Amino acid sequence: MGFRTAIMGATGAVGQELLRLLDERNFPLDSLTLLASKRSAGKKIIFKGEELTVQELTHDSFKDIDLVLSSAGGSISAEFAPSAVKAGAVVVDNTSHYRMDPEVPLVVPEINADEIKNHKGIIANPNCTTILMLLALAPLHKKWKAKRVVCSTYQAASGAGAIAMQELADETRALLDNKDYQRSVIPHQYAFNVFAHNSPMTENGYCEEEMKMVNETVKIMNDKNLKVTATCVRVPILRAHSEALNIEFEDEFDIQEAYELLRNAEGVEVLENRAENRWPMPIDATGTDPVYVGRLRRDLTQPKTLELWLVGDQILKGAALNAVQIAEKL
Amino acid sequence: MGFRTAIMGATGAVGQELLRLLDERNFPLDSLTLLASKRSAGKKIIFKGEELTVQELTHDSFKDIDLVLSSAGGSISAEFAPSAVKAGAVVVDNTSHYRMDPEVPLVVPEINADEIKNHKGIIANPNCTTILMLLALAPLHKKWKAKRVVCSTYQAASGAGAIAMQELADETRALLDNKDYQRSVIPHQYAFNVFAHNSPMTENGYCEEEMKMVNETVKIMNDKNLKVTATCVRVPILRAHSEALNIEFEDEFDIQEAYELLRNAEGVEVLENRAENRWPMPIDATGTDPVYVGRLRRDLTQPKTLELWLVGDQILKGAALNAVQIAEKL
Repeated sequence: MGFRTAIMGATGAVGQELLRLLDERNFPLDSLTLLASKRSAGKKIIFKGEELTVQELTHDSFKDIDLVLSSAGGSISAEFAPSAVKAGAVVVDNTSHYRMDPEVPLVVPEINADEIKNHKGIIANPNCTTILMLLALAPLHKKWKAKRVVCSTYQAASGAGAIAMQELADETRALLDNKDYQRSVIPHQYAFNVFAHNSPMTENGYCEEEMKMVNETVKIMNDKNLKVTATCVRVPILRAHSEALNIEFEDEFDIQEAYELLRNAEGVEVLENRAENRWPMPIDATGTDPVYVGRLRRDLTQPKTLELWLVGDQILKGAALNAVQIAEKL
Repeated sequence: MGFRTAIMGATGAVGQELLRLLDERNFPLDSLTLLASKRSAGKKIIFKGEELTVQELTHDSFKDIDLVLSSAGGSISAEFAPSAVKAGAVVVDNTSHYRMDPEVPLVVPEINADEIKNHKGIIANPNCTTILMLLALAPLHKKWKAKRVVCSTYQAASGAGAIAMQELADETRALLDNKDYQRSVIPHQYAFNVFAHNSPMTENGYCEEEMKMVNETVKIMNDKNLKVTATCVRVPILRAHSEALNIEFEDEFDIQEAYELLRNAEGVEVLENRAENRWPMPIDATGTDPVYVGRLRRDLTQPKTLELWLVGDQILKGAALNAVQIAEKL
C-alpha cells in the first residue's frame, strides 16, 4: 500500500538526503527508482541494504511510478515533469521552475498543507531561504499580522549543490596551503570570502534568490500585504543557512508571547542562552530537522517591530525534508 | 617639526597596521616609541629600516610624547590615557572606552573632522562597523536625510584581534584534517560557522557591538533622529567586514544620484559590475583603504527606502587608517 517512487537527481546533495529520509522516516515505498543524468547512470547506491542502480532519466522513465521527487534542476523539471504527470505520477518538485505557476500549489506543510489537495500533478517545494524564514514568521504573522520583513541571509554552499560544498572545502585547503585552486561551479573565491548570491540579476537590481523570497512568501502565506525585502549573501558555510529578520507587525506584539508561539510552532525550536551569549549557529542546525530561532528583541527604531535570528539546514528543511513531508501528506 | 609618537598595543593586529601606515603615509614623526604589555616588551620591530624595541607600558611611558595612538583594549586605555594626557600628549584612542564620553570627540575625518579641535587630550576612533557604515551613509544622509537604518553585518575575525585571525585559520585547517582544535579567544567553532557577535549582551537584548552602531552613529552624525537597528554577526572571514544596509530617507531619493554621491564621496568607491553579477567582496577590500559600496536598489516594500551593500577593511579604515587620519588632521 505504498508509493512506487522515483527520485530525479538521486546523486545530488538533496537526492542523497531524500534517500536517507525515505529510509529513516519509513516512507511507504512499493518500489524505488533512482534517476539521474546520463553521466551518473550506472552508479550503484545502497538503500536499506539493497543495491540500486541509477538509471538514465528519459521521458519513458515514469511507467508504473506514482510519485516523483525531483531535485535535478529547473530545466530538467521543466522538461520531464510533464512526462511524469502524463504517465500518472504526482511530482513533488524541488526546483524553482513551477513555483509561481498559479496551477501549482507551493507548500510548506506546517503552514499550508491544505493546498496539497488542489494539485494537478505537480506540487512545488519552495526556495530554501523562504521555507526557513516562513517557519519562524508564520506563527507570529498569524497572531500579529506581519506587514514588512527586511531579511539578510547568510547562505551555505549546499544551495549550489554537492560540488559547491566540495569546492568550498578544497579551495579552503588550497588557500591555507598557499596553492592555486581552479573553481568549477562557484563564480568567486569562496574560501574566507562572502559574496552576493550568485543567482541571475533581475531588472530591479534584486537577484532571483531575493525575488523568490518576495514572491513565494506572498503565495505561501496567501497574503498580498506581506512584503519582504531581502539581501541574499553566500558565506563560507557548508550546509546550513542563517537569516536575520526585521519584522514589522500591524499589531503590537509581546516578546515573551512571541517566544511561546515559536516554542509551540511545529518544526521550530527556540535555541538560546542569553546569559552565555549563545544563539543558533549553522553547526547546530547541520543534519537536523528544525529551524532554530533566537535573539528575539524589540527594534528600538520604530514601534511594533521585532528582530530575530534563525538557522536551518538548507538540504533538509530547506529542501529534502520539506519535499518528503509534502509526499507524506499525499 | 613632527610628533613624538607612541603606539600603545604595538604588537597587535591594529598596531602592526598603524606602523605600516605611519611609514607608508610619511607621517611626520620626530620619534617613535612602541609600547605593549609586559609579555610583549623586549620584542624587536623593524620600522623604516631601524630596529625598535617594544617597551613595557607604564604610567611613566609618556614623557616627551606628543601623540599616543592607542589600540591595546578599553581597560588599558582607561588606565593609561589619563597619564598620557597629564604628561601633555594627545591620545587618539582606538578602543570603545571614551567614545560616548561627552568631553571626547568621536571622529571619522571624512565626516566630522571639525570636532577634532574640541578635544581635551583624547580623541576617540569609532567602532569599525560604525565607521564603515557611516562612510557610505553620510553623503546620502546629507542629501536626503536618513531616518532609519536596518543593518546586518558580516564581520571578520580581525575585530577580535590577531590571535582570532590565527585561530580561524588554524581551526579551519584542523577541521579539514579531522583533528581536534583547542580555541583560546573565539567562544564558538568559527571554521565553517557563523555566530552572533560575541560582545557582551545588554539589557535590551542587543549586544554591545550593536549598541555601538546605534549610539556612535547619533554622536558622529550629530543627529538624534538618525536611528539604527543592527544585527552583528561574525562570519569566517579574516579581516574585512561586510554590511547590508536598508536605509529609509525623509525625502525621495534617486538611485543614479545616489551612485554619483557615493562615487564622489571621500573614502568611498563604487565597485560593481551588474552585467556580471559582481559586487564588493571582503577579498576586494582586504589591505585597501576605501569602503566599497554596490548593489544600490530601491526597496520594493516601502517608499523612500534604499538597499545597499558595503565592504571595508576592518583593520584599516575600520581602525588603524581612521586613527592615523585623525592624527594627520591634528
